Amino acid sequence: MWQLYQFPLCPFSRKVRLLLGEKGVGYELVRESPWVQRDEFLDMNPAGQTPVMADSAAGTVLIDSSTICEYFEETIDKASMLPGTAANRAEIRRLVTWFDERMYAEVVAPLMHERMLKRIVHRMTPDAKALREAMKAANSHLDYVDYLLDHRRWIGGPVLSLADLTAAAHLSVADYLGGIDWRGHDRTKEWYAALKSRPSFRPLLSERMEIVSPPDHYDKVDF
Amino acid sequence: MWQLYQFPLCPFSRKVRLLLGEKGVGYELVRESPWVQRDEFLDMNPAGQTPVMADSAAGTVLIDSSTICEYFEETIDKASMLPGTAANRAEIRRLVTWFDERMYAEVVAPLMHERMLKRIVHRMTPDAKALREAMKAANSHLDYVDYLLDHRRWIGGPVLSLADLTAAAHLSVADYLGGIDWRGHDRTKEWYAALKSRPSFRPLLSERMEIVSPPDHYDKVDF
Ligand SMILES: N[C@@H](CCC(=O)N[C@@H](CS)C(=O)NCC(=O)O)C(=O)O
Ligand SMILES: N[C@@H](CCC(=O)N[C@@H](CS)C(=O)NCC(=O)O)C(=O)O
Repeated sequence: MWQLYQFPLCPFSRKVRLLLGEKGVGYELVRESPWVQRDEFLDMNPAGQTPVMADSAAGTVLIDSSTICEYFEETIDKASMLPGTAANRAEIRRLVTWFDERMYAEVVAPLMHERMLKRIVHRMTPDAKALREAMKAANSHLDYVDYLLDHRRWIGGPVLSLADLTAAAHLSVADYLGGIDWRGHDRTKEWYAALKSRPSFRPLLSERMEIVSPPDHYDKVDF
Repeated sequence: MWQLYQFPLCPFSRKVRLLLGEKGVGYELVRESPWVQRDEFLDMNPAGQTPVMADSAAGTVLIDSSTICEYFEETIDKASMLPGTAANRAEIRRLVTWFDERMYAEVVAPLMHERMLKRIVHRMTPDAKALREAMKAANSHLDYVDYLLDHRRWIGGPVLSLADLTAAAHLSVADYLGGIDWRGHDRTKEWYAALKSRPSFRPLLSERMEIVSPPDHYDKVDF
């Protein structure tokens, strides 16, 4: 049985869970708070980051969300999330990196720091300026997703792909942390509503991080 | 004909060039300085980063070094740089990400900032403390490579892979910028000497970045 080391608001773990859900791969959740830097976790992953997937019976340890997704793309045929030609796949991977690097660094990581880590770990209040900047960056990212969806059915092309799952994973964490103002982003909102109603997404939306609560609209498909 | 947008000291472009060299894919170099943020370049890649590969006849644009490498792995059979089982490939991809994220952030990016960008763009002198920290981090990374090579023939497993090319790409830029003290790292030095003598590596070692010169040992196979 695969075990996924993660915590409820880790966007990279959410991306992996959405992929596993689409592919119908079973796994058990193991709660890991990377900020604790637990010795046994560092022994497993020297980078000290979630997600990690381990199958102890087989002795397999998979580290890094994109590596994990590529592994299951290679081993499970069902529901390819890197569909199409090599060039189509390159466009999907470009967007995955865009959301994992840019949206994470500019929007999700600052929100997690201000609204989650400061509360849980540092017992401090969030910095209003940092929150304002993250929300402004979120708005630019939503503009870019609006633009992509004006040109294509899904974010990475004509069919659902890992680009959609990745964008939704980061967006969902930002939304949980109150960082998303959906007004003026109808196209992206419609796309996100469609994703929210997928069976792969529902378990994520029902989970809660201790101490930190999401806004009311967070888990509603109609928001 | 493929065109590769890059500058001589971009480690991500070096990784791509090493892969293309091993696979025997021809390309033309186009000089791009991402810090200039040229409008036409931003139109091609909204992330504004090198490397980008473009085949204008075919209308194909590939963005992000890992995306580019996956593309050529999928389309060119010669010299697989992601060899082995899905689990072997996952270990290689984990290490690629490790060097691209960690070694780049802790060693290569600070050296590039202090010894290249400050000279070329800001006309400032480097900060001694930042340089000391980058060199200390370089030493830890070399320790980790020593450790990997104590357990395996190559960095990612029994055969040459993208993990070796990625580590060598980052190390070569750090070495050019005078950030590597090879003493005490005999195993890694031996591995690096073997890579330096490969035909895929030689063109990189003979190129120079304007204004910034490498130390004497930089392009010597015997150093
Ligand atoms: N490249 C990694 C990034 C994972 C990552 O940044 N995880 C965060 C949690 S969301 C983490 O573990 N941070 C702790 C740290 O970096 O020390 C991936 O895609 O899996
Ligand atoms: N994930 C990208 C990172 C590329 C990257 O950081 N390139 C640097 C040059 S070495 C760059 O363009 N920096 C300018 C910027 O980030 O604005 C890749 O693997 O290609």
